[in-house]
Amino acid sequence: MKNEDVMNIAKKRGFLWSSFEIYSGVAGFFDYGPLGSILKNKIMDKWRNYYIVGEGFYEIESPTIMPEEALKASGHVDHFNDPMTECKECLEVFRADHIIKEATGEEVEGLENQELTEILSREQILCPRCGGHLTHVWSYNLMFQTLIGAKGKKTGYMRPETAQGIFIPFKRLLRFYRGKLPFGVVQLGKAYRNEISPRQGMIRLREFTQAEAEIFVNPQNKSHPNFKAVSNQILTIYSAEIQEEEGEPIKLTAQEAVSKGVVSSEILTYQLCLADKFMAELGIPEDVIRFRQHLNTEMAHYAIDCWDVEVYTDRYGWIEIIGIADRTDFDLKSHSKHSTEDLRVFIEYDEPTIIKKMVVKPDMKKFGPLFKGDAPKIINALKETEPEIITKAFEEGNVYNMELQGNNYHLTPDLLSFEEVEETVRGEKIYPHVIEPSYGIDRITYSVLLHCFKQEDDRNILHLPADIAPVGVNVFPLVNKDDLMLASEHIRNDLRNEGIIAELDTSGTIGRRYARSDEIGTPFVITVDHQTLEDRTVTIRERDSQEQVRLSVPELPNKIIGLLNKKIKFSELEAQ
Amino acid sequence: MKNEDVMNIAKKRGFLWSSFEIYSGVAGFFDYGPLGSILKNKIMDKWRNYYIVGEGFYEIESPTIMPEEALKASGHVDHFNDPMTECKECLEVFRADHIIKEATGEEVEGLENQELTEILSREQILCPRCGGHLTHVWSYNLMFQTLIGAKGKKTGYMRPETAQGIFIPFKRLLRFYRGKLPFGVVQLGKAYRNEISPRQGMIRLREFTQAEAEIFVNPQNKSHPNFKAVSNQILTIYSAEIQEEEGEPIKLTAQEAVSKGVVSSEILTYQLCLADKFMAELGIPEDVIRFRQHLNTEMAHYAIDCWDVEVYTDRYGWIEIIGIADRTDFDLKSHSKHSTEDLRVFIEYDEPTIIKKMVVKPDMKKFGPLFKGDAPKIINALKETEPEIITKAFEEGNVYNMELQGNNYHLTPDLLSFEEVEETVRGEKIYPHVIEPSYGIDRITYSVLLHCFKQEDDRNILHLPADIAPVGVNVFPLVNKDDLMLASEHIRNDLRNEGIIAELDTSGTIGRRYARSDEIGTPFVITVDHQTLEDRTVTIRERDSQEQVRLSVPELPNKIIGLLNKKIKFSELEAQ
Repeated sequence: MKNEDVMNIAKKRGFLWSSFEIYSGVAGFFDYGPLGSILKNKIMDKWRNYYIVGEGFYEIESPTIMPEEALKASGHVDHFNDPMTECKECLEVFRADHIIKEATGEEVEGLENQELTEILSREQILCPRCGGHLTHVWSYNLMFQTLIGAKGKKTGYMRPETAQGIFIPFKRLLRFYRGKLPFGVVQLGKAYRNEISPRQGMIRLREFTQAEAEIFVNPQNKSHPNFKAVSNQILTIYSAEIQEEEGEPIKLTAQEAVSKGVVSSEILTYQLCLADKFMAELGIPEDVIRFRQHLNTEMAHYAIDCWDVEVYTDRYGWIEIIGIADRTDFDLKSHSKHSTEDLRVFIEYDEPTIIKKMVVKPDMKKFGPLFKGDAPKIINALKETEPEIITKAFEEGNVYNMELQGNNYHLTPDLLSFEEVEETVRGEKIYPHVIEPSYGIDRITYSVLLHCFKQEDDRNILHLPADIAPVGVNVFPLVNKDDLMLASEHIRNDLRNEGIIAELDTSGTIGRRYARSDEIGTPFVITVDHQTLEDRTVTIRERDSQEQVRLSVPELPNKIIGLLNKKIKFSELEAQ
Repeated sequence: MKNEDVMNIAKKRGFLWSSFEIYSGVAGFFDYGPLGSILKNKIMDKWRNYYIVGEGFYEIESPTIMPEEALKASGHVDHFNDPMTECKECLEVFRADHIIKEATGEEVEGLENQELTEILSREQILCPRCGGHLTHVWSYNLMFQTLIGAKGKKTGYMRPETAQGIFIPFKRLLRFYRGKLPFGVVQLGKAYRNEISPRQGMIRLREFTQAEAEIFVNPQNKSHPNFKAVSNQILTIYSAEIQEEEGEPIKLTAQEAVSKGVVSSEILTYQLCLADKFMAELGIPEDVIRFRQHLNTEMAHYAIDCWDVEVYTDRYGWIEIIGIADRTDFDLKSHSKHSTEDLRVFIEYDEPTIIKKMVVKPDMKKFGPLFKGDAPKIINALKETEPEIITKAFEEGNVYNMELQGNNYHLTPDLLSFEEVEETVRGEKIYPHVIEPSYGIDRITYSVLLHCFKQEDDRNILHLPADIAPVGVNVFPLVNKDDLMLASEHIRNDLRNEGIIAELDTSGTIGRRYARSDEIGTPFVITVDHQTLEDRTVTIRERDSQEQVRLSVPELPNKIIGLLNKKIKFSELEAQ
């Protein structure tokens, strides 16, 4: 189904609508309605099931408002910008790269403002709205800014990504994981991007939900212990090389992607495989998914390899819904520098290493009489001094001058001797690298609706997988008589008591009720008829096959739980 | 356990810590660490289970950034203020009501700025920090302000409550519920309050999580269909009257609370009962919970009856963790007025009513010749005119003057006749009233930690109910031998595959491991020993009773799921 039709049904049936409609709306904001909200929550539950239960990562939750220092360190205050230009006539503002692309078809993302200004002028690009002349291009920071507190005028921003909230308390997280790499931490929550003038519905939101995992690894070891389990999984790969040669995406197994060097590491490839499996389980068909590698020109400043999981849409073409990046040690290094906290990890060697090193030994008999009370502090300072510096000074002038707290001490060769000693080194401190899968939950929810909606014989059917459908089961009395209504209500209540979202629908013909139920993706319908009153059985109908089976009422809750979490197949119901 | 000890353990073990520590922190912001995040999510899951599955309400999700118009309508732009004063010497700012209370012990919440200024002066209250003189009191708006978009300079605010996001799309929600009252809609999410200088840890956050339900009811009917089920529930009631008479809270059944007129409606009382049950299920003891009614002076401008669920804390005294209010039609009326959208609901009468009314009939034979082409529009205007206005004019001057689009028409009694007709009225349009339970999830999480932590024989035990414990089960090999380690790992993995958060701990003595496990509230520990390798059985130990039972490995997942969702009791394990 097309974007427009899907969005119309989504609005009409209570999945999604533009926010603040009664106040004429504000671009870039959407409400999740009653059904959309459950769908989104179920997608996030599934994500948690993958990353928390499955991968064994823990979740944290950090504030959406962040102080300026932290975002200065992450580079967002200086670099999270869009190139902007303004019409000198109508004063409308535009993203310079977008209007250049619209006018010339050329992809100019990542070019400097100066270059963009030149292109605007060279190509004689005018205001798309009124035809007026455009200003030079300048940088516009995409963060929503605010002030924290009444007095201090402390600048804060709405976070541009959830990831930073994981890097900042890294030391606490490392301690939680008892100081050992690798470990993963996830965060699901709101992130913000004050788009200049978003006009792409659910695709370009000013407030959106991310699900991000930050996996901290030893830079020397980017393998994955479970890689074998995914090595034969087939991925649709659209590498930077293929894009540069204007080729078509190719199918590779995960193993091939790694051994051919297409993806830079096992662990990154493992993440591609997880994402691929996740999308398939959400009902998005394989042929509208591809893995596109970032070109060098578009790669974020912090990454060395980055892949977008893209989904095809009729309206917006291929859109990024997941980004999977090797962020290296950029963030931890940068936060270490700005905060002066040491965010390195001590890595113990498999075997302690014995190294030989030169040490300086002061001649204690001479030091005491010569330096008196200052002797201890000179000896301490010597321990911190590289012996090479002293030997070099001796070679040059036969004296090593040491300045300590304003005093000068002249150390001559007769006062010191040099000795080679062996030292056992157990490990070293390093900055971990970070592997980051970053899921855009809103775009994923949109893609699920877009690709699960089908029009069949003039009816709209939302083919959602049973485990993410907002309403689990609908209960219909065949006719609206008191006894059937009462029996239906009991069944609905029993299902609710088991935690199933069950609804009762008594309005209109059975045909209308099926149509309504299918349109919101409810996978199963129970019909209560006269036989129910006699033998306590009901029919259960599956949305997709439209087949019906008769089940006894007492076994309903367990059967339906099994059907909804996909441990039972509908086709196997009768056999049970 | 005391606040300080609880917060220390919470920080050390990864439940909660102050945000942005490496940047010296920012007051009023907390991170939920790996364990705190699961605990909080499980509390929210339980809330959803109460309100979505149990009460049948649907959830929506609206943006946290809101445009100014919407918050102007809600009253927050003008009234969401704190009274502030500044020290003329050290320039520190304070909440005027807080420092008055500290200095005099007097509760002055809700007084006007003018009155507060007078008290400061009369009581000679000085700066609590430096002893300097204080300025007059002014109003400080508590919303975080920002700008939306690059150019328009559209003012936005971080929402002060999730509720407004439900009122704004009310028409869509009403349509989703097919136009029928009552219905409920919930929202869980962040809300913001730019506190002047928060110094109360988890109790006064600048960014916090709310879980709110807005229940739209017919103002004529504030009963509740399930009230009978709760009518004998006993509540600790601290009514406005008791507070005014300086009495102690009393115990009342829900039924008594309604019939004595202590709580204003059945539906409000039903919500108190739900909250009471919810808190009990979170492990908060009955004797630290009370329901305090708002005094008239402190009640929000939109409410007619409001109750706080309060929990006792050693550090902060009684604190509000849930607010339950009858917001009347304030919000819907106000949004109707500001947006010019009609947010009323058509209420059909049980029976159509037949009313008699007077209608005016023009004498068509005379109208045509007299008014010619203007006749139709005069006749239309007459339909919209109250007949009483015309008869009154006739009584006074024997003529009714009608002005239409600048023309004057003189209608005399001979042109009109009056007739009484019967009209069938099927219903009327009304503004629903709103019943709102509003849960402060952060304060609830804090209260759970505070009241579930116990020190017993020098050990810290977190007595969390099994269904909200972050880690469901810990697996220990009795000794760290390869075969026991491997068996333990298998058991852990099998449990994870069933969606249980299971951990393996192989570090330190068994005693140390039990202590660590108890301190984070893990309800069950499985120990794998040599017998496990022989007969595939393990011991399972319950945290609270410290009792152990031997179970067979294959039955572990089902048994543990049952124990965690409290469908099986540990004491009944052996009997099974």
